[in-house]
Amino acid sequence: MRQAVELEKAYRLLNHGPTVLISSAHAGKDNVMAAAWTMPLDFSPPKVAIVIDRNTYTRELIEASGEFVINIPPVNMAQVTLAVGDCCGRDTDKFTQFQLGKITASQVKAPLVDGCIGWLECRLIREPHIQQTYDLLLGEVVAAWADDRVFNHGRWHFSDDALRTLHHVAGGHFLQIGDSLTPDRTAD
Amino acid sequence: MRQAVELEKAYRLLNHGPTVLISSAHAGKDNVMAAAWTMPLDFSPPKVAIVIDRNTYTRELIEASGEFVINIPPVNMAQVTLAVGDCCGRDTDKFTQFQLGKITASQVKAPLVDGCIGWLECRLIREPHIQQTYDLLLGEVVAAWADDRVFNHGRWHFSDDALRTLHHVAGGHFLQIGDSLTPDRTAD
Repeated sequence: MRQAVELEKAYRLLNHGPTVLISSAHAGKDNVMAAAWTMPLDFSPPKVAIVIDRNTYTRELIEASGEFVINIPPVNMAQVTLAVGDCCGRDTDKFTQFQLGKITASQVKAPLVDGCIGWLECRLIREPHIQQTYDLLLGEVVAAWADDRVFNHGRWHFSDDALRTLHHVAGGHFLQIGDSLTPDRTAD
Repeated sequence: MRQAVELEKAYRLLNHGPTVLISSAHAGKDNVMAAAWTMPLDFSPPKVAIVIDRNTYTRELIEASGEFVINIPPVNMAQVTLAVGDCCGRDTDKFTQFQLGKITASQVKAPLVDGCIGWLECRLIREPHIQQTYDLLLGEVVAAWADDRVFNHGRWHFSDDALRTLHHVAGGHFLQIGDSLTPDRTAD
């Protein structure tokens, strides 16, 4: 079940480096693409940094609307994560083509992608120089959500292998996240 | 055994989102700290983005020298990864305190941390506005290395659990990377 994540804990959805889907919307059109280059940028207010190529339709929609959603797909969405990265949303309604459901977001017009396990609703922090020079976009997280089967009490708890996060390496080859590890903090 | 990684494949060391150690050196002093907020920024020439708090000694050394190394620690370095994140290098020689070995880098003065499984030697791309406003630092990767037991032919191959990458969530709680997954690209 989708539950709100406290804003000051939203970074924990991205801290371990999952590959994500970026959804965007503007003037009645929307789109979704895959992105591996995403990281938290601050705790409170929570901020994120993402790399979005200047030639993508997603980039056009984000810069026009000033909004985007970072969606975290699980292993059972690996194929569609790859597929939405392979084709261009200027020519295709990717939500329809790939039968992806949309959930209405709370703070932004871009939809949450159904079936994902974490969502960060973001407002673009406009920094034209780094957007133009590096395709680097910054955002403030204005709402965050997670599937409480795998993220609750501020931590990921992966027991169902189909709901682990995806971590793209290259060329359609992913790693899935493994088990947890809590080293003893006192010894050195 | 440590082997050079082709520069255009260096992003693959970071693409799946591991937690890293950042080493730095200036004027005869060096330091190492842990960082979870790191991502690739470009393929060729390869670039990276990292978040380094303005109050850290590492930040001072990086801005003074214009150089840093991103080191990727394996599971068997989880405890020391946590430890070097907990204490400050202004007061302590962390390499000595935590018995971390140094390997001489090829292009920068900052050392490679021995025992890690991947290394990216970086030159700071000075962008004062985002450094000052967001603690966001950009770098160009000028040399890259990996332990060929776990990274070879441009891909990670984790068979020894002790050599899997670490992915910090929060408060000393890590996830380790799991197994690989290559979805069928043709179906949708």
